[in-house]
Amino acid sequence: MDRGDLFVISAPSGAGKSTLCNRLMERLPGLVFSVSHTTRPPRKGEVDGKDYFFVSEKEFERLVTKGKFLEWARVHGHFYGTSRDHVMEFLSRGMDVILDIDVQGATQVREKFPGAVTIFILPPSWTVLEERLLRRGSEDMDSVRVRLRNALKEMEEVANYTYTIVNDKLNEATDNLVAIVVAVRCRTARVLASKIDMTALHPGPDSWFLK
Amino acid sequence: MDRGDLFVISAPSGAGKSTLCNRLMERLPGLVFSVSHTTRPPRKGEVDGKDYFFVSEKEFERLVTKGKFLEWARVHGHFYGTSRDHVMEFLSRGMDVILDIDVQGATQVREKFPGAVTIFILPPSWTVLEERLLRRGSEDMDSVRVRLRNALKEMEEVANYTYTIVNDKLNEATDNLVAIVVAVRCRTARVLASKIDMTALHPGPDSWFLK
Repeated sequence: MDRGDLFVISAPSGAGKSTLCNRLMERLPGLVFSVSHTTRPPRKGEVDGKDYFFVSEKEFERLVTKGKFLEWARVHGHFYGTSRDHVMEFLSRGMDVILDIDVQGATQVREKFPGAVTIFILPPSWTVLEERLLRRGSEDMDSVRVRLRNALKEMEEVANYTYTIVNDKLNEATDNLVAIVVAVRCRTARVLASKIDMTALHPGPDSWFLK
Repeated sequence: MDRGDLFVISAPSGAGKSTLCNRLMERLPGLVFSVSHTTRPPRKGEVDGKDYFFVSEKEFERLVTKGKFLEWARVHGHFYGTSRDHVMEFLSRGMDVILDIDVQGATQVREKFPGAVTIFILPPSWTVLEERLLRRGSEDMDSVRVRLRNALKEMEEVANYTYTIVNDKLNEATDNLVAIVVAVRCRTARVLASKIDMTALHPGPDSWFLK
């Protein structure tokens, strides 16, 4: 029976997580991004079921009460959550699921799903992180300051992650991320469950060995 | 402090372990093959300290008694062993050490070195294994039969290994082996010990954030 694995990827803003995740998806088949539920109204161009599952607050609360979320959080007055059923369905189809969530979300997933593989992406230095966020120029200085304050706090959690990637050179960091997923796919339990039939490793009726 | 990891690779004869290990060494720097101690006399061209450390039976027994071997075995009347000091010295220099040993040796290493990463290489099928060994033609049929009998027994141990690689397509199997080593190098404890200085991830005196 084929079964995928759950990957949790966290990073401070500016560490390059989105770029790395996109490159990972381009390099490897069999990966799917988890789509979150949210009570935030859709922005222009956002598609229900693709960008988010847009639900009412009442529906969201019902899902929380029924334990339907692997993790959930309230951010800027709106709720966001990862549906357990949604993730489980992909995993049972043999897909590997990527969750792009923050350190609080990762803590919740670790408790509810101990088999999750957690990956933290670090910038090479604080200086580089500052430069990247200031260079973006798309936000006011107060927002940059908030992001940096959060980054400082989030990076304190790195020791709780299974793997850490330092995003210094993008190609090397991509190779590392790809390698982690490929290695997890080589774990013995997974290989024996999906890649090879142990009966094929025993001599069959036509075997020279049995003659 | 930089510190390498210990990789144990086992496979039945004919699974392609030597080829895969050689390709791994070509692809990644920082890897070293462990050189075994043996009481077998050197063959023509073999160099002491490179192919093996050639020692007397008395010396070998002394090393066994002093617990100097991570694993040892008697094969065809000669003793073979992996020196713990030798392995530890490479690891402490930040090198990753590859041990090419059988399932019995792997069991001993697991007990004495629980942090070892164990990898089993499987042929895609029994039929392929038979064909590969028969095609070699370098051995008599009795030897092939012994190798196949051992293979059958060794493959029963696959579930005790951390990772399993099915050597169906050589390039894919090589990629998998490389990915496992790269992923182990991305384990958080190792990255925090060697690749990045956490003080560099805090704002320094010239930081914009602290202004």
